[in-house]
Amino acid sequence: MRRIKLILEYDGTGFHGWQFQPGLRTVQGVLVDALQKMTNEKIKLIAAGRTDAGVHALAQVAHFNTASTIPLDGFLNGLNSLLPDDLVVKDVKDVGQEFHAQRSAIGKRYLYRILNRALPSAIVRFRVWHIPTILDIYKMSEGCKYLIGKHDFSSFRASGSEIRGSVREIFEIKINKEKGDFINIIIFANGFLKQMARNIVGTLVEIGTSKYPPKYIKEILEAKDREKAGPTAPPYGLYLLEVVY
Amino acid sequence: MRRIKLILEYDGTGFHGWQFQPGLRTVQGVLVDALQKMTNEKIKLIAAGRTDAGVHALAQVAHFNTASTIPLDGFLNGLNSLLPDDLVVKDVKDVGQEFHAQRSAIGKRYLYRILNRALPSAIVRFRVWHIPTILDIYKMSEGCKYLIGKHDFSSFRASGSEIRGSVREIFEIKINKEKGDFINIIIFANGFLKQMARNIVGTLVEIGTSKYPPKYIKEILEAKDREKAGPTAPPYGLYLLEVVY
Repeated sequence: MRRIKLILEYDGTGFHGWQFQPGLRTVQGVLVDALQKMTNEKIKLIAAGRTDAGVHALAQVAHFNTASTIPLDGFLNGLNSLLPDDLVVKDVKDVGQEFHAQRSAIGKRYLYRILNRALPSAIVRFRVWHIPTILDIYKMSEGCKYLIGKHDFSSFRASGSEIRGSVREIFEIKINKEKGDFINIIIFANGFLKQMARNIVGTLVEIGTSKYPPKYIKEILEAKDREKAGPTAPPYGLYLLEVVY
Repeated sequence: MRRIKLILEYDGTGFHGWQFQPGLRTVQGVLVDALQKMTNEKIKLIAAGRTDAGVHALAQVAHFNTASTIPLDGFLNGLNSLLPDDLVVKDVKDVGQEFHAQRSAIGKRYLYRILNRALPSAIVRFRVWHIPTILDIYKMSEGCKYLIGKHDFSSFRASGSEIRGSVREIFEIKINKEKGDFINIIIFANGFLKQMARNIVGTLVEIGTSKYPPKYIKEILEAKDREKAGPTAPPYGLYLLEVVY
């Protein structure tokens, strides 16, 4: 049995997230259809992480098993000719059965993009969160210091999500301004709870507008209570940048 | 009578170009509707240049006359609340009757974006021309030298376009590579014939793939024959960056 690893880029706008849902257009659903058409097999496809509806990916990773003998570039070209324009397979590799897209991952890097100016943008409207209030990125960076390291991130997890441990380690958070009024927040962690990246961004924004002081992050973490943290940032500003193995 | 100048950003994807056409969604049509709703007047709106279907603008300029006493920020906020998300008014200014969005312009700057890598991109698919063949930007830059200056650009004008002089002056063309396999071509000229920017890009790409040597541009110009130049680059890679007055 072969195991194949895929690297995927997608525009989340037209998908109801990664996870298969009957009757809805999902990344997994569209990919599995194409894979089944190519292999004539029933395919089980597993991703590094299940991105939510509207979230983009520049390099999502997924794997599947197949008995097919189609060469790798046959998969690459065949899939890309079958797939819609908002989903591109960037790489196809043979891997060993010990590789698991989700369990083998040692870290994931997400990017969150904010457009911080008075007026919205027509061109990047499905690509950034537009915030008209001026954000203080020094305060936001100060707040990040409390997030780095191993913590119980219950306060940043979507309420109602299933319990499977809530301790994660954030290795790095970088915030920088980019020409054109963009603010980029890159979060690198060993794993993310449901909506954790978006809840962190929503909270950092409240620190950037001076609603809370940077050290309030410490209190939020200690409370282990979703109610303490800021709102969930919208999905269309979030990009899965990289999965590290 | 007041004359008002607008600066506009739009995503060309959902518009049949600038120019009003009955029954079609155009930038001019959508804007005039919003302006007439605000002023209760019949509005005549004139743009610096009529962008084609699919072409984007970061700073299109337009003007109109009105007897309305609505303050400038009332226009800015009112228009943006009436307009769809793919059309944003970035600035509103009172100008004198001597200002004319098209006739007063001394130059326009267009950007053309190419994604030059084997695989297309899901995220920027309506924003760049994807070219999988490797382009030699040194050859392309060499070819540009023949375009700079005052020339008869008949060979780069859409066939069948009305005659109104075909001499234009290109002040500058810059080609640069950007991280992520992008090639940016910026063309600054005193005016552009119909599809001139896209026909120049289509021709430069044929030089970049070594179909023609750079100096072939000279022959194309001298021939004054649209058949001599390369194909028309697709509209979705083109952005009106700036109008200079």
